[in-house]
Amino acid sequence: MEMQPEKTPQAEALPRPRVPALDEILGKPFPVLDDGLVRVIDYMGDDAAVVQAARVSYGQGTKKVSDDRGLIRYLLRNRHTTPFEMCELKLHVRVPMDAWRQWIRHRMASVNETSTRYSVAIDAAQRTAADQWRLQAQDNKQGSSGLLDPAAGAELSAAEAELQDHARAVYNRRLEAGVAREQARKDLPLCTYTEAYWKMDLHNLLHFLALRMDPHAQQEIRAYATVIGREIVARWVPLTWEAFEDYRLGAMGFSRLETAIMAALGAGDADKALAVAREAGWLKQSKRGGLVRNRERAEFEAKLARLNMTPPWR
Amino acid sequence: MEMQPEKTPQAEALPRPRVPALDEILGKPFPVLDDGLVRVIDYMGDDAAVVQAARVSYGQGTKKVSDDRGLIRYLLRNRHTTPFEMCELKLHVRVPMDAWRQWIRHRMASVNETSTRYSVAIDAAQRTAADQWRLQAQDNKQGSSGLLDPAAGAELSAAEAELQDHARAVYNRRLEAGVAREQARKDLPLCTYTEAYWKMDLHNLLHFLALRMDPHAQQEIRAYATVIGREIVARWVPLTWEAFEDYRLGAMGFSRLETAIMAALGAGDADKALAVAREAGWLKQSKRGGLVRNRERAEFEAKLARLNMTPPWR
Amino acid sequence: MEMQPEKTPQAEALPRPRVPALDEILGKPFPVLDDGLVRVIDYMGDDAAVVQAARVSYGQGTKKVSDDRGLIRYLLRNRHTTPFEMCELKLHVRVPMDAWRQWIRHRMASVNETSTRYSVAIDAAQRTAADQWRLQAQDNKQGSSGLLDPAAGAELSAAEAELQDHARAVYNRRLEAGVAREQARKDLPLCTYTEAYWKMDLHNLLHFLALRMDPHAQQEIRAYATVIGREIVARWVPLTWEAFEDYRLGAMGFSRLETAIMAALGAGDADKALAVAREAGWLKQSKRGGLVRNRERAEFEAKLARLNMTPPWR
Amino acid sequence: MEMQPEKTPQAEALPRPRVPALDEILGKPFPVLDDGLVRVIDYMGDDAAVVQAARVSYGQGTKKVSDDRGLIRYLLRNRHTTPFEMCELKLHVRVPMDAWRQWIRHRMASVNETSTRYSVAIDAAQRTAADQWRLQAQDNKQGSSGLLDPAAGAELSAAEAELQDHARAVYNRRLEAGVAREQARKDLPLCTYTEAYWKMDLHNLLHFLALRMDPHAQQEIRAYATVIGREIVARWVPLTWEAFEDYRLGAMGFSRLETAIMAALGAGDADKALAVAREAGWLKQSKRGGLVRNRERAEFEAKLARLNMTPPWR
Repeated sequence: MEMQPEKTPQAEALPRPRVPALDEILGKPFPVLDDGLVRVIDYMGDDAAVVQAARVSYGQGTKKVSDDRGLIRYLLRNRHTTPFEMCELKLHVRVPMDAWRQWIRHRMASVNETSTRYSVAIDAAQRTAADQWRLQAQDNKQGSSGLLDPAAGAELSAAEAELQDHARAVYNRRLEAGVAREQARKDLPLCTYTEAYWKMDLHNLLHFLALRMDPHAQQEIRAYATVIGREIVARWVPLTWEAFEDYRLGAMGFSRLETAIMAALGAGDADKALAVAREAGWLKQSKRGGLVRNRERAEFEAKLARLNMTPPWR
Repeated sequence: MEMQPEKTPQAEALPRPRVPALDEILGKPFPVLDDGLVRVIDYMGDDAAVVQAARVSYGQGTKKVSDDRGLIRYLLRNRHTTPFEMCELKLHVRVPMDAWRQWIRHRMASVNETSTRYSVAIDAAQRTAADQWRLQAQDNKQGSSGLLDPAAGAELSAAEAELQDHARAVYNRRLEAGVAREQARKDLPLCTYTEAYWKMDLHNLLHFLALRMDPHAQQEIRAYATVIGREIVARWVPLTWEAFEDYRLGAMGFSRLETAIMAALGAGDADKALAVAREAGWLKQSKRGGLVRNRERAEFEAKLARLNMTPPWR
Repeated sequence: MEMQPEKTPQAEALPRPRVPALDEILGKPFPVLDDGLVRVIDYMGDDAAVVQAARVSYGQGTKKVSDDRGLIRYLLRNRHTTPFEMCELKLHVRVPMDAWRQWIRHRMASVNETSTRYSVAIDAAQRTAADQWRLQAQDNKQGSSGLLDPAAGAELSAAEAELQDHARAVYNRRLEAGVAREQARKDLPLCTYTEAYWKMDLHNLLHFLALRMDPHAQQEIRAYATVIGREIVARWVPLTWEAFEDYRLGAMGFSRLETAIMAALGAGDADKALAVAREAGWLKQSKRGGLVRNRERAEFEAKLARLNMTPPWR
Repeated sequence: MEMQPEKTPQAEALPRPRVPALDEILGKPFPVLDDGLVRVIDYMGDDAAVVQAARVSYGQGTKKVSDDRGLIRYLLRNRHTTPFEMCELKLHVRVPMDAWRQWIRHRMASVNETSTRYSVAIDAAQRTAADQWRLQAQDNKQGSSGLLDPAAGAELSAAEAELQDHARAVYNRRLEAGVAREQARKDLPLCTYTEAYWKMDLHNLLHFLALRMDPHAQQEIRAYATVIGREIVARWVPLTWEAFEDYRLGAMGFSRLETAIMAALGAGDADKALAVAREAGWLKQSKRGGLVRNRERAEFEAKLARLNMTPPWR
């Protein structure tokens, strides 16, 4: 798009950008978890709006070398961010408050959430099926790994139902006694459902998705992020989504130290690779023989394994 | 402070700005609610930093007409904001999660909160004394007004303790069964205590305080805001705090319509005042006689009453 | 709009909100200054989107007492901000860089500006007609007041043209010599035109307009803000615009001290009013007789005059 | 630091965190360009503040496995950001307005800049020595590469001085005629010096430095960023700075496609590597023989070369 409109005054108003594939699902709820949902309320912009913004910033030169897809890939690859801010997505979500607590930490959003000061709290809290109780991960302080035996799980699910019913009864009793809603709610379970309108620009949304679709994200919020990414963003801005999958979701990064080791390996110089690792303190011998546990080295080994490469100390 | 330092190179480094009155309370906890706290961890800047920033922006002219106090008052009165951003306050807080849910909606802050994915949740939830159960306000959908009879309150307090114990027992049972912390926590009460470092610049902090010290704010967060304002900010930046009390906490605003009515009253022209109000739709007669209830008119009447003025329709 | 969509699944997608009055001017340039423009590229939301967001936050109670107009006025009067963030406006602007320097200080915006590193700078700088040279205000360090005599102005306009031509010639000579665009541009005049896409939510846009439509704003940026406000926002969200005119543009505020004096006057107690003013240090006698100049007192007197009220010390 | 202070009330106030290496240079100007400077005015926090914030978020578990250095490296490697927001740096800068235009695009900052509405503009514009005129890069639309012959440069430098003197004379003539400062300044050169206080948290500062110390950044702003990074941040938070150099400045990233090719090469499967590249459209044959120019392929080849690896299509 040319940036000198005053030379070419429009007789007709420009048509408003729209995305038919997204218009088709406007307002339609995607179910998430046992009683949650995500749906698109409105949006602004499309892949072309990203391109339009980039072309005004980075000049006409971008026009020659790149079609739209190439330009969007270039922008995402080189971490240009402002063109993606030109698109906005507005969702209606229904989500347990404990997942919402994580969600709301993304500050570059506009939010209007149901207030339990003004209204009676939604009468629904997330329930866990007997076969959905996740075990604490042993190698990761913050994660889960594997599932509890469903027989034991059934007992926990029954206790969960009992507790949630108890909490709701206490809540109702307080309301009946005339207690203010703002105070009555205080002992509702953290997983009580809430609803909100949530609006974010595409740049910040991709950042949200990169963090919340990640395997380290908690399963509940990952379920929402995955629906937003694969069902909504992929329909809305397909070129951006493809580039995002290539340059964010599927990408790998290497530190200065790691690239130095890889460059030595590439040159066939295992000694130099070892020397670099040794200088970094990665190759300390434990008293029992092998190498002392080292988190940076372990992460690098895992990345090399993905590339079918072997570290020289193995 | 002059802005041409290159003309006057320092032989000695500048001393770092500090506020002795705040240094005295660094790290000391102010108790809030039954088991919460606020304490100052660190800060940057002082009243003089606000003045320094304003002088570079608004020029040397500010120096002649105003001492520091006058300049700070001028800035706050005229809603200049950036000079106040030059000061930062970092707090450690311990607060029930349901109050924290409101707190965290202030986005212009830096936050690190204890994670109940990584660590076992704090074993404390806010408890309510028998004489602290607040009644739902009748004239305000979101507020509370008055207190429940302590005898009835005692019953609610007992039920609260029972529910919190139940929730904790369920939480502990899940942990014992090996359930991941991130999932085990889901039915903890909303008022479970959490802890965080929370950092904000002075401009945004004043905005936070204006909203959260307001009588319409929920009592719990108001208790925190009041401690932050009166115990901490008042010590830290006393000139700014004084101006804030005058131009925010104690200020009144009038709309275009309201000022038109007041100007008519000031000119002794009650007919014109009535005409303005009538045109605005404020003076519709109900079938039963008096005026139809009108929220804008009612708010204006309340403001006039504070000024000992009488609307001409009374 | 109800917030329990899962109970009422849509068979049909929701229609996308649109504003016909704004669609009519999409892409059409509004000229500003001698060679600038503003035009709407896209938008999201409308007055109804503000209402929708407020209703989810503030609950169903809002529905009974207020129609849409009343609710929007309530929100703006009470400085609720998040519902207005649900609307976005995206403009294409052409503006002198020195006005753009002020514009860009509003941080809550998304911006893509033409880069003079990538592209040759726009060959236009703002020109001043002989009768448009503004005089330095005497009572206001930052403003202008009155106009230079056009005969003297003609001389300045001729000198302006000569300087701008000189600067452009130097720029072109550098480019011809092969100098990088990023360096060649360094001596272009500050008022060289630039172009940008600029996107902002409605809450931040109203804040921008309140500051930049103000008589204290520089005339150039005020010209842009006035077009954006009166030609664009007024068409886009007419209820919000009406409320904005009443509660921002036309509003007055009074400090705690000022309201104390007014309340004393309202009660007919001039002595108390004088005492309050005296205690505030407003009534110091100068050696020559009258009162010592005091900025706060002078501002209050000006406000009282607007209300046809007289301070008791006059 | 433990997060349960209420159990261990302080008798003494905590000492305020300070960094002696930074205190030594407080207020001392670092010269940049011909007449610019950067100096530290104040700061908040240090490496330990980052660690403290991380420990409250990520739990006590972080304490066992990591010393401070290891934790800071872990945080930066995994793009944790909030702990770095706990530190703030406040600078006084003197910088040409055209570099400032780029600088100010970083929105997460607090800024107070000298106003040329209030004060007469600083009487200095950036001057270019005869041997400092940079040539337009041929392979990069936005960059410079190499230097102009100093003889030709001398001519440009003379013309630059003449133009700047001309612009200043016009400015002064307008002021003498009584023109308002806000208007008189309009034709000053873009490279006129300005001064500002600029404050930013460490997370955003590292982002600023990653972009502005990059070889693609314009030389002028790169000069400032390099001083801020190497002279100031390296003194202030040495552990964070070391990690930043390893994980940002010296890091490399690979897309999903690139890692797939590298993994095939690592497994010794050149055919598969070629197949992946072919499917991505990287290996189209031009009519003249070799491969059609492809920007993504070229960037990948450059990265492989840094690792001493050869693409299978060479």
